[in-house]
Amino acid sequence: MTTSETARDMANAVRFLSADAIENAGSGHPGLPLGAADVATVLFTRFMTFDPTQPDWPDRDRFVFSAGHGSMLLYSLLYLLGYPDIDLDEIRSFRRLGSKAAGHPEWGHAAGIETTTGPLGQGLANAVGMAIAECHLSAKYGTDIVDHRTFAFVGDGCLMEGISQEAISLAGHLKLSKLVVLWDDNAITIDGKVSLADSTDQIARFEACGWDTFSCDGHDQDAIAAALEAAIASDRPALVACKTTIGFGASGKAGTAKVHGSPLGEDEIRTMRETLGWPHEPFEIPAGIVDQWRIAGLRSGAARRKWEERFAGIDAEKRGDFERSMRGDLPSGLKQGFDRAKREANAERPDLSTRKASELALEMINAIVPETMGGSADLTGSNNTMAGPIEVFDAENHAGRYLHYGIREHAMAAIMNGLALHGGLIPYGGTFLAFSDYARGSIRLSALMGTRVIHVMTHDSIGLGEDGPTHQPVEHLAALRAVPNLCVMRPADLVETLECWQIALGAQHRPSVLSLTRQAVPALRTDEHDENKSARGAYELVPANGDAKVTLFATGSEVHLAMAAKKVLDRDGHATRVVSVPCFELFAEQSEEYRAAFLDDPSLKVAVEAGVRQGWDALIGRHGIFVGMDGFGASGRAEELFAHFDITSDSIVHRVRERLAEMTPTEESDPDV
Amino acid sequence: MTTSETARDMANAVRFLSADAIENAGSGHPGLPLGAADVATVLFTRFMTFDPTQPDWPDRDRFVFSAGHGSMLLYSLLYLLGYPDIDLDEIRSFRRLGSKAAGHPEWGHAAGIETTTGPLGQGLANAVGMAIAECHLSAKYGTDIVDHRTFAFVGDGCLMEGISQEAISLAGHLKLSKLVVLWDDNAITIDGKVSLADSTDQIARFEACGWDTFSCDGHDQDAIAAALEAAIASDRPALVACKTTIGFGASGKAGTAKVHGSPLGEDEIRTMRETLGWPHEPFEIPAGIVDQWRIAGLRSGAARRKWEERFAGIDAEKRGDFERSMRGDLPSGLKQGFDRAKREANAERPDLSTRKASELALEMINAIVPETMGGSADLTGSNNTMAGPIEVFDAENHAGRYLHYGIREHAMAAIMNGLALHGGLIPYGGTFLAFSDYARGSIRLSALMGTRVIHVMTHDSIGLGEDGPTHQPVEHLAALRAVPNLCVMRPADLVETLECWQIALGAQHRPSVLSLTRQAVPALRTDEHDENKSARGAYELVPANGDAKVTLFATGSEVHLAMAAKKVLDRDGHATRVVSVPCFELFAEQSEEYRAAFLDDPSLKVAVEAGVRQGWDALIGRHGIFVGMDGFGASGRAEELFAHFDITSDSIVHRVRERLAEMTPTEESDPDV
Repeated sequence: MTTSETARDMANAVRFLSADAIENAGSGHPGLPLGAADVATVLFTRFMTFDPTQPDWPDRDRFVFSAGHGSMLLYSLLYLLGYPDIDLDEIRSFRRLGSKAAGHPEWGHAAGIETTTGPLGQGLANAVGMAIAECHLSAKYGTDIVDHRTFAFVGDGCLMEGISQEAISLAGHLKLSKLVVLWDDNAITIDGKVSLADSTDQIARFEACGWDTFSCDGHDQDAIAAALEAAIASDRPALVACKTTIGFGASGKAGTAKVHGSPLGEDEIRTMRETLGWPHEPFEIPAGIVDQWRIAGLRSGAARRKWEERFAGIDAEKRGDFERSMRGDLPSGLKQGFDRAKREANAERPDLSTRKASELALEMINAIVPETMGGSADLTGSNNTMAGPIEVFDAENHAGRYLHYGIREHAMAAIMNGLALHGGLIPYGGTFLAFSDYARGSIRLSALMGTRVIHVMTHDSIGLGEDGPTHQPVEHLAALRAVPNLCVMRPADLVETLECWQIALGAQHRPSVLSLTRQAVPALRTDEHDENKSARGAYELVPANGDAKVTLFATGSEVHLAMAAKKVLDRDGHATRVVSVPCFELFAEQSEEYRAAFLDDPSLKVAVEAGVRQGWDALIGRHGIFVGMDGFGASGRAEELFAHFDITSDSIVHRVRERLAEMTPTEESDPDV
Repeated sequence: MTTSETARDMANAVRFLSADAIENAGSGHPGLPLGAADVATVLFTRFMTFDPTQPDWPDRDRFVFSAGHGSMLLYSLLYLLGYPDIDLDEIRSFRRLGSKAAGHPEWGHAAGIETTTGPLGQGLANAVGMAIAECHLSAKYGTDIVDHRTFAFVGDGCLMEGISQEAISLAGHLKLSKLVVLWDDNAITIDGKVSLADSTDQIARFEACGWDTFSCDGHDQDAIAAALEAAIASDRPALVACKTTIGFGASGKAGTAKVHGSPLGEDEIRTMRETLGWPHEPFEIPAGIVDQWRIAGLRSGAARRKWEERFAGIDAEKRGDFERSMRGDLPSGLKQGFDRAKREANAERPDLSTRKASELALEMINAIVPETMGGSADLTGSNNTMAGPIEVFDAENHAGRYLHYGIREHAMAAIMNGLALHGGLIPYGGTFLAFSDYARGSIRLSALMGTRVIHVMTHDSIGLGEDGPTHQPVEHLAALRAVPNLCVMRPADLVETLECWQIALGAQHRPSVLSLTRQAVPALRTDEHDENKSARGAYELVPANGDAKVTLFATGSEVHLAMAAKKVLDRDGHATRVVSVPCFELFAEQSEEYRAAFLDDPSLKVAVEAGVRQGWDALIGRHGIFVGMDGFGASGRAEELFAHFDITSDSIVHRVRERLAEMTPTEESDPDV
C-alpha cells in the first residue's frame, strides 16, 4: 500500500505548520505532530464526520486528543480544515498568553477541541465516556438522531498510566463498538525508549480487555485507512496500533527522545524541508494544499444537513427534550420537585444518614430529569446512588442510566467528564470520600473545564467507624475545597441534602462534590418557605438570644453537635448562634457584607468539623477554637471515635467555657481572641 | 489432587476464627477469609519462609495482603502461627478502638503486618517495591544475606484499579522473578458479580505484561501447592490465579456478594459449623490444630539461624552498613556533606532553579548515602533526579539505584512505600507537582504509615510557563499540606534546598514532598553558620529596621519577590521584614512563643505564594494580604504569567501601600486589620 502525493503533501502541511509554530514559540513538542501527521490526515480527511462550519453539530464524530502535549497537531488540523477559531495568527502565537492555541489543548478555547488534555490517560477515559453517551443517546433518540463515532488518539504515556487500564477494561466490557483508539506507537517517551520502562504487549493487553485490534504502518496512508476501515467495522471497541517514527522527517533527531519536547532548531528544520521536499517558507502552505484540506473539511456538510432535516422531522417533544438537554438546561418541574421534597422533609423530620437523604433526592431527581446518568465505583449499596426509575446501562441495555463502573474511581471521574462534554447528560457517580484521592486527576480537569459532574462521596468522616483510617477521610474536604471552581458541599440533614443536590444540578459550569455521612443524623432544618439557604454557603441555622457571644460554625454530621452545645451554652448565659456551612466556595462568593456579619462580629468563633483545620482559619481566625481532627482516624465504633477524638457537644461546651473564663471582660469584645 | 484432613482442619480454623471474630465485632468482611483460607494455609504452611519468634528477620519472605478488607484472614494466620502481637483477646476485640486487629491491617499495629492496606491495588504495588528492594539488596549484599520472596495476595478489586496495571507492567518489565501474586479469583465484588463491570481475561493481561501465569482450584490444597511450586520456579514474576468461592462453607450465601462485607449471622455460622464439620465453640480451636499451625510457624527457624550465622561471618563493614541501613540510620559523613555544600553555596550564591539545586544536593547525597534509590516517572531530565554516582536499576543491572518508573506516578509512590517498608533503602522519586494528584492514594498511605519516602516534585507553579494550566499546580501545595504527617517543603534557593533535603532524609517516620521550581531563582541565604533554619518551618530571612510595620511571608520562587518589595517599602519608611516559610508543618510544630513572634505582632501581614490562599489565613488572618493565585493558571511565558496574575514585587508594594494608606494611625497597630 502507499500514500498518494497529495495526501503526503497534506500531511507535510501539518508537519511544517507544527514544526514552524513550535520553533516560533521557542518551546513545544514537535515529535508527535511530525510522527502522527499521516495518521491524522487519513482520519480527518477520509473517516471523521464533522462540519467546521457547525462545529457543535451534536451528531459529529468526536476526536479526543489524549496525548495533549502534541497540541500543534490538533491546531494544524483545525486551521487546515477551516475551523473558525484557529487561524494562522493563533498558530503564530502558539503557547503565548491569550492564544487560543495554548500549550496543551484547552476545552473552550476553540471549536474542535473536545476536551482539555495534557495529564496523560485522561483523554482516553473521556473518550470512553463520550462513547457511552453516544451509545445511550442513540438508544434513547434513535440512530436517525444520534449515530456517531468517538476516536481517541493516544500515546505510549497514555497507555502506561493506570487510568488507561480502568478505561479500556470498562470499554471492552461494555462493548463500545463505536469507539476507536489510535495508538501512536512510536516507542519513545521523555526519558528515552519505551523499552527503558515498559515491555507490555499492548495488542495482547487490549485483546485481554475485550478489544479488537489492528496494526498498520503509520506512515503508509492507505495502510492506515485499511486498518481504520476494519476497526470501524468491528463490533467491539477497536485499537489501531500505528507504528510511527517520532519526529518523522526531522532526520537528525527522528526516532529519539530528543525530538519529543523541544523545538527542532533552525538547522534541523532546514534539513527537514529538503528531506520532505517542502520548499515553502515558515507558515506558508500552498493554496492548493489548503484547498484540499478545506474540501476534506466540508465533505460531511451534506450529511449534517440531512441530519438537520431528520431532526426537524421528529416528534416535537422529543426534539425539545434533545435540544434542552444538549443545551444543559434542566427540565421544568424540577424546582417544584425540590420544593415538594423539602416540604415533606419538614413535615417528617426524619433521622437519617445524608447518604440516604441523597438517595431520596435522587429518587425524585431521576424521575424528573431524564438525562441523569448515575453510577458508582462498586459501592452502589453504600453510596445509595441507584434510586428512582433507572436501569443499568450495559452491553445489552443501552437505554439504562446507571453504570456499574467497577473499582475504577479514576476512570469513573474521567468518564463522567466525557459524558458531560458529550452533552445531553448529567453524570453523577459515587465512591467513598477517602477515595476521592484516586480520582483527583480527573476531578481537577472537570473543575478546569467547568463540566457539570456530580461526585457523590459518602462515608465522609470517622463516622464510618470500624473500617479505620484508610477509609476515613480527614484531609479530603480541605484538599477538595482547595481546587478552584469545585463546589464542595457537606449537608447536615435531609433538607440541606436536597438543597445541595439542587445547587449541583443547577451549576452548569462547575463540578460538585457531595460529602455525605454513613451514619444517621437528626433533622435540623424546619423551614417555613422554599428558599435554598445552602446556596449562601453559610447561613444562621439558629440565632443567638440577642447579640451572639459565641458563634458555632459546623458542617454535615457535626451541625447537630453544635446545636446541642448551643443549648448548654445558652443555659450558661453565653448567647450562642449556630451557623451551618454547607459550602465554603459559595460562602466565599457572597458579598463582603454578608460574610462580615458572620466573621467580623465580636463573638467567640468556634468551628466543628470532623476533618483537619486547614481552611477554617479564614472563618474563625488563628485564635478561634477548632473542634475536629488533627491526624488520622482509627478503627472503632463511630460513637467511640467521636468521643476518642473529642468531637462532641461536651467538648465544644468545655472548650468554649474554658476560653470564656480566660478572657477578661475587655478582651471578650476583641474579634481576634 | 486433594487436600488432607489435617490441612483442611487448619484452613477451617482460619475460617471459623475469622467468621466468629467478624460476628463478634458486628461488622467486617467474612467472604474473603472463608474463600481464601485454603490458599493462605498452603502458602504459610508449605512455602513462606519466616519466623514468628523473630518477625523482623530481614531475610524473611514478605507477605503483602493487598485485599486488606479481608483482614481477619491475616489476623487468624498471625495468631495461629504464633506471632507475638495477635492473641485471641485481640481477635475478640477485632475492629474495636485500640485493638491491634483493626478493621483493615495497619502497619505498626502488629508484627507480621508488612504494610497498611485497604485502598485497593496499593498492596500489589507495595509488593513490587519490596521485590525491587530484595533484588537490589541481593545484588548489593549477596544472596547469602538477601534472598527472599515477596508474595502478594490480591482480589478482583485490586486488579481493576489502575494502579495494578502500572505495577504489574513495571514488574514484568523488570523481570522480578521472586514476586508471586496470588489472585483470589472469586468473581464477586460489592455490587455483585465481577461480570457486572468487568470481562477482562486477567491471565492474558498478565501475560501481556511479561508475567508467567498459573491457575488452580483454590480449594484443592495440593493443586494450590503445585501452582505455587511452578510460580516460584519461574524466571519471571508469576501470577497464581486461585479459583475460589467467596464465603466458602457458608452455604447459604457463598458465591454471592452477600457474604462480602457483612457478618454471616448466627444461623449461617451454625449451618457452616455443620457443613464443614466443625463442632467447636466460637474462638475455640482444638489444641491439635493449633499445634499443627505452630509447628508450621516454626519450620523456618533453622533457616533463620543459619542466616544469622552467615550474617555474623561477613565482612564487618558490610555488616555494619546492612544493619545501619535496615535500622534506617543515616551514614556518618552526611552532616558534613550538607555543611560543606551549604558553605559552597554561600560562597558562590548561584542563580539557579531549585530543581537544579536539588540535583546538586543529590550529587552529594547519592555519593555519601549508599541506600538511596532514586527514580522518576519519565521526567528524569526535568526533575533532575539522576545525579551522582548511580546507575539504572533494570532487569540486567540489579545493582543500579535509579528506576525508570515510566509514566506511572501512582505506582511510583506505592512502590516507594514498598521500598521503604522493606527496609535498607531510602526511596526518592520525581514527577511534576501537578501530577501529585495521580499519586495521592499512595502518598496518603505513606503519611499514615510514616514511611520515609521523598517526593521530588518540580515545575511547582505557573513559573513552568507555556505548558499551561493542566501542568501548573495551583491547589497542590494546599492539598498536600492538608495531609497529616506529610512534610511539604518549598525551598527558596540552593541553601534552603539543601536544608530541605537534609530534613527529608532525617525524617525517619514521615514522607516528604520537595516542591521545586523549573525556573531560576536568585540566591537569598547568606549564612554564617551551619544551622538548618528551614527546620523551623518559617524563619526571619531579613529583619525589619526596628519594629516591623509589615511582615512579608513567602515561599519558594516568591521569596525573592518579597525581598525586592521589602527594599521599596523600606524606602517608603515602612519597616518590613521577610519571613521565608519553607514548611508549614514544621512551623506548626514550633513553640507557641516562636510562632507568636511571627503571627501575633502588630505588623501588617502579607503572604506571597503562587498557589491558592487556603491555609495561609492561619498565618496572616482573614484580613491579611494574599498575593497569589485564585484560580487556574494559563499558557504563556513565566514572566508574563507572574505579571498577568499580579504576583510581582510591584503588586506586593502596591497592595501594602494601599492598605497602609487606608489604615488610620490607631488601626495600624491592630493585628487583625
